[in-house]
Amino acid sequence: MIERTLFDAGHQAFADSFRRFVDKEVMPHHAAWEEQGYVDRAVWTKAGANGFLCLSMPEEYGGAGADKLYSVAQMEEIARAGCTGIGFGLHSEIVAPYILHYGTEEQKRKYLPRLASGEMVGAIAMTEPAAGSDLQGVKTTALLSDDASHYVLNGSKTFITNGWHADLVIVVAKTDPAAGAKGTSLLLVERGMDGFEKGQRLKKAGMKAQDTSELFFNDVKVPAENLLGGPAMQNKGFICLMEQLPWERLQIAITAVAAAQAAIDWTLDYVRQRKVFGQAVAAFQNTRYTLAELQTEVQVARVFVDKCCELIVQDQLDTQTASMAKYWTTDLQFKVMDECVQLFGGYGYMWEYPIARAWADARVQRIYGGTNEIMKELISRNMGLPGR
Amino acid sequence: MIERTLFDAGHQAFADSFRRFVDKEVMPHHAAWEEQGYVDRAVWTKAGANGFLCLSMPEEYGGAGADKLYSVAQMEEIARAGCTGIGFGLHSEIVAPYILHYGTEEQKRKYLPRLASGEMVGAIAMTEPAAGSDLQGVKTTALLSDDASHYVLNGSKTFITNGWHADLVIVVAKTDPAAGAKGTSLLLVERGMDGFEKGQRLKKAGMKAQDTSELFFNDVKVPAENLLGGPAMQNKGFICLMEQLPWERLQIAITAVAAAQAAIDWTLDYVRQRKVFGQAVAAFQNTRYTLAELQTEVQVARVFVDKCCELIVQDQLDTQTASMAKYWTTDLQFKVMDECVQLFGGYGYMWEYPIARAWADARVQRIYGGTNEIMKELISRNMGLPGR
Amino acid sequence: MIERTLFDAGHQAFADSFRRFVDKEVMPHHAAWEEQGYVDRAVWTKAGANGFLCLSMPEEYGGAGADKLYSVAQMEEIARAGCTGIGFGLHSEIVAPYILHYGTEEQKRKYLPRLASGEMVGAIAMTEPAAGSDLQGVKTTALLSDDASHYVLNGSKTFITNGWHADLVIVVAKTDPAAGAKGTSLLLVERGMDGFEKGQRLKKAGMKAQDTSELFFNDVKVPAENLLGGPAMQNKGFICLMEQLPWERLQIAITAVAAAQAAIDWTLDYVRQRKVFGQAVAAFQNTRYTLAELQTEVQVARVFVDKCCELIVQDQLDTQTASMAKYWTTDLQFKVMDECVQLFGGYGYMWEYPIARAWADARVQRIYGGTNEIMKELISRNMGLPGR
Amino acid sequence: MIERTLFDAGHQAFADSFRRFVDKEVMPHHAAWEEQGYVDRAVWTKAGANGFLCLSMPEEYGGAGADKLYSVAQMEEIARAGCTGIGFGLHSEIVAPYILHYGTEEQKRKYLPRLASGEMVGAIAMTEPAAGSDLQGVKTTALLSDDASHYVLNGSKTFITNGWHADLVIVVAKTDPAAGAKGTSLLLVERGMDGFEKGQRLKKAGMKAQDTSELFFNDVKVPAENLLGGPAMQNKGFICLMEQLPWERLQIAITAVAAAQAAIDWTLDYVRQRKVFGQAVAAFQNTRYTLAELQTEVQVARVFVDKCCELIVQDQLDTQTASMAKYWTTDLQFKVMDECVQLFGGYGYMWEYPIARAWADARVQRIYGGTNEIMKELISRNMGLPGR
Repeated sequence: MIERTLFDAGHQAFADSFRRFVDKEVMPHHAAWEEQGYVDRAVWTKAGANGFLCLSMPEEYGGAGADKLYSVAQMEEIARAGCTGIGFGLHSEIVAPYILHYGTEEQKRKYLPRLASGEMVGAIAMTEPAAGSDLQGVKTTALLSDDASHYVLNGSKTFITNGWHADLVIVVAKTDPAAGAKGTSLLLVERGMDGFEKGQRLKKAGMKAQDTSELFFNDVKVPAENLLGGPAMQNKGFICLMEQLPWERLQIAITAVAAAQAAIDWTLDYVRQRKVFGQAVAAFQNTRYTLAELQTEVQVARVFVDKCCELIVQDQLDTQTASMAKYWTTDLQFKVMDECVQLFGGYGYMWEYPIARAWADARVQRIYGGTNEIMKELISRNMGLPGR
Repeated sequence: MIERTLFDAGHQAFADSFRRFVDKEVMPHHAAWEEQGYVDRAVWTKAGANGFLCLSMPEEYGGAGADKLYSVAQMEEIARAGCTGIGFGLHSEIVAPYILHYGTEEQKRKYLPRLASGEMVGAIAMTEPAAGSDLQGVKTTALLSDDASHYVLNGSKTFITNGWHADLVIVVAKTDPAAGAKGTSLLLVERGMDGFEKGQRLKKAGMKAQDTSELFFNDVKVPAENLLGGPAMQNKGFICLMEQLPWERLQIAITAVAAAQAAIDWTLDYVRQRKVFGQAVAAFQNTRYTLAELQTEVQVARVFVDKCCELIVQDQLDTQTASMAKYWTTDLQFKVMDECVQLFGGYGYMWEYPIARAWADARVQRIYGGTNEIMKELISRNMGLPGR
Repeated sequence: MIERTLFDAGHQAFADSFRRFVDKEVMPHHAAWEEQGYVDRAVWTKAGANGFLCLSMPEEYGGAGADKLYSVAQMEEIARAGCTGIGFGLHSEIVAPYILHYGTEEQKRKYLPRLASGEMVGAIAMTEPAAGSDLQGVKTTALLSDDASHYVLNGSKTFITNGWHADLVIVVAKTDPAAGAKGTSLLLVERGMDGFEKGQRLKKAGMKAQDTSELFFNDVKVPAENLLGGPAMQNKGFICLMEQLPWERLQIAITAVAAAQAAIDWTLDYVRQRKVFGQAVAAFQNTRYTLAELQTEVQVARVFVDKCCELIVQDQLDTQTASMAKYWTTDLQFKVMDECVQLFGGYGYMWEYPIARAWADARVQRIYGGTNEIMKELISRNMGLPGR
Repeated sequence: MIERTLFDAGHQAFADSFRRFVDKEVMPHHAAWEEQGYVDRAVWTKAGANGFLCLSMPEEYGGAGADKLYSVAQMEEIARAGCTGIGFGLHSEIVAPYILHYGTEEQKRKYLPRLASGEMVGAIAMTEPAAGSDLQGVKTTALLSDDASHYVLNGSKTFITNGWHADLVIVVAKTDPAAGAKGTSLLLVERGMDGFEKGQRLKKAGMKAQDTSELFFNDVKVPAENLLGGPAMQNKGFICLMEQLPWERLQIAITAVAAAQAAIDWTLDYVRQRKVFGQAVAAFQNTRYTLAELQTEVQVARVFVDKCCELIVQDQLDTQTASMAKYWTTDLQFKVMDECVQLFGGYGYMWEYPIARAWADARVQRIYGGTNEIMKELISRNMGLPGR
């Protein structure tokens, strides 16, 4: 095996510490959270109290001022444990960075500390029922009132991770509906604003403790100062979204590789102890070749994703490479899960076995964050193969 | 498309009639049954009252005396509707045939009419926690009492379809534990016998309305007359199991092809109406090629399985061919489901969409009825390639 | 295994007889023919003398008046033997049928007997360097002279099977270049006509004894009576081409399945006798599962293609089904060859081993006769998924 | 795209220089060399004269004293150009290192300068007709004469790269046949020794300019001083072979990735200019997605193999990782070639197109250097999954 060089001792100590938190505060409850369809709100507050939220935000805004690799280590721990109900990654490394990078000083001071403490749970609302992953097709509108005091927000969003718990939602909306992508802005919408309603929590094939939800906005009056970045950023939301994509997609890839490696490890344990037809499942050549193939691909993926992590830390990860990482590792993750389920036989289909849940959880990774087909569109365009 | 010639007008009329039953008595409740983990017991009785159970059993035993193709048509309707909680196939075309083919006249008169009416729900208990699909490794024992009046049954079984509702279970047990496969017998065990307990209903990744259960037997006194086939069949259970395998495996294949075709049809509907990036999903070449590939393979599978159905009706389906059908069509079924989920995008992962449930349901078909790996063992042996 | 019912005793006797011909007149020379890049012309005459050409043509035109299944049996024998240099199928079952179905009585009397005797070798010239498989994009023109006595043919064709030996070429040309597909006609062009030149024999990755060639037409004066079907068929060539497609594509599928089965049989022999690491290659689970998978798919393909053969005999094979058969079986054929090569190890790459040649030969089946991508276009259109 | 950091300016300048050599001295002749089945002997001498052989050997032995990355750069240039007849890699980075690492000072002085100058062409003879890749099953014997003056070498070898040109062959033989692997030694056998005969050059499906040959040894008297490493190394050959495996396997992987990238680049050029059905092949979504998938995997492979190169330079590449690289990249290489052939349509099958030759050449990479199945054996053993 290739020794990983991505993490230093600080990252590793942090990972150990966070793993203990997961073991104590998450794992004993996760099955129950799956039943209820959302994690207990308290786990957010506890995570905040322990400094496990918004790690890479500056200390002055309540963060730990850590480099991104601490977040990488955290995502890996969550993926390894299979506690996919925990939406810290989106909260800390997607929502918070938008505010940090594009927000006004006032917005940073107002929201980041509350995200870091877990007082607020963050979400981002891009996808719409009709538009899917097509950000240019967003139909939600936010029209500036005549007195410029507020935006009137109308529209609906779906598949919103952390949606049901969310206290703060970055809503992608058209402030200039006639201008296409160039009329897109980002609005900071808080729980409790009039006309902001949450739909049902969506029941899914997996990720059952994730409180994925629909969100509805009916004439919500969003104060003008809640435009992310202030007036200068009006109609510039699309650029922000594009800039953040590489890091967002890489996060999915990081999760994919860590989850896949965990599944291989569970399966190695299982096939060594499980006996059929008089010998350990591990002794069959079919088992051995299958696991050799899966481990090879996960090792290859790990080297690739670690390279991408090094690049993101240097701010040099391009969109094409991130799209490659997202598509390829999530396809791989599901393939690993699917073949491992088969090696578990009937037990692989039983919900109490982590492999069954990991299999069901993994499926959506190929879909969200831009479907893998959209990744191929982007990659091929970057290869000089434009679609129509 | 190739016109099917398998069914005549009688089969088709029956299929229509049964489809109406499914639409009225099953579909409105299936989501609730998934929630509770089992179908309402009443659906069995209603099916019996309508003549939908034990179709191929002789009329003198309460059946309809129909050819097997009526059952094929029924299985296809269930598969097409995706109501995988309904275990009629196992009951009518696996459990009942054992009694018909191997049972004593008394056993037939006692049990078949009650299975046909739905008074009794049937199950068969082969798989054990330790032995899995390895029937030769069965550890459950049924030792004849000194006075030969009863067998003392001990052991545990798992993954038993219809297990929680079951009133009559054909239990595979060793009556001569030292004799290996040649010491295997089949016992008719009724609900209520002392020492026969049902474990929990098993929570699964899919097939959530199926009452798959564990069964426990602790010193159950099974009357000697409940040995399937009477004294002459003692220790001959393994042969019975082998003889029935082709038909049992073909049933899985029939279900696989019908479910896959249904998924393609749902997806065709969806991609035609769903628009992304300004055009119907159906218009993308990736969508069109994917669906062309899936439809090609399902068409090929349909012709193959219909051929197998013709052979089974003529009692000429061999084990190797049935194993090919089981393995190949279930792999295909899952592939179809998985690619169709992708074409549905985020909605494909939402439990309320039939494709999401069909995807989760399909996964176990590659595992039960003998894993697809075991099928390959059998096929290769029949090709003159013995394992060790 | 499923017993084949496609052939009756007559077909089987014929197959035996033709196999002896192949063993005596083809196999001893095929390696030399590969070296020289074409089969000896004499094999055509011998085949004609033995009644092995134009089997399905009526007796009055020199054929055997046999049903198409005799030709199927012949194609299978050629495929099984791997003597891909032999272009009898194209000659007898593509070229001759065009003349039979669309030719004038005079054309039939003039050409069919000479094709049946082997005096003439037939070819059909569709593909052009610039247009590839796109028949609508054909650039070759055949303009009727002012006195209507002849057509002036100009253009070039490539990838023409039997091209170098060809004495009679059906040339697809535009007689009304402005009318697109509706300006297409078929012309009977004979060797020796002024301005008809043959380019080089094309050196290919496989099919090395096939005299695939380029053909050039420079102001060739083709007598008006050489318009296939006479004046009434002017501009109706595209319809003829479309009508013959199902049978042409099915022929490729027939060849694919027979070749794949032969490869499995060779490999079974090899792995049983070849020992590595102290045991027969056949004893490794990887070998057994691989061969079980391949045999399963070839068995499934065989049933499908036999069904298609039954349909073609009844004149009921539709284009979509034929396209499915062509694409799916040729993909399968190559997969089988590729995995069998691997099971042969280093010997699988040695040209003297039939599996190496069969592997290289198989590759083009996915390309010619309409690429498999074009098949998917056609299938998806028939599914109601139109491209742009 | 991820910027490569493997090479420094020195490596790049060297690559440019060697590319000019290939363009001038190799490419104009390679087609002719394929026809004749071997490269002209002169190209070896020219390469030696230009300092392109034995780059990483110390200067005192005629080498350039360069780090291994110069050789990596050279292998990539050869792979990119598709001139697979050139066996410099084996000569310089497999044969020569055995002598450097295990040879006596005298052997180094005698042979390395002559390998570096191209006076001698080197080969290594492991594989035998009966044993294949199983080094423990080697049957060639080298028995020390009673006076210890020489070994009597008997046996035959096959699939020997550079075999027909070879002036110096490292022969793997059993000096203690009863001791299994622990009786293995390496002998330096020179052209012209009595009883050393070369069999025919093997005709292969691809790699047609490579002079792969059989070698026969009939009572060859090999002087005792030609035991590689001298008397102390008697019976220690197996360890040497094992130690060199990682670097040998990595070389195959390096070649695989470079060849695959070249094929993608050729295909990008082709699909952009080739028009079918009225548009560039590049504009079809199927083309774009296929190329995006292939480029993604080749990018991932490149990062992985570059990482392995960094490790080998630090002498830290383990056998398992090298086996992963060999198996995974060669499977990928062939997949890339195969899909690119398809995108070229009929031209992809024409031998004059580099993609056709690259496709045929690539096939053997999955077989030699230890089949990919053997790689999976090794990987699984290193994962703690022992076979029987």
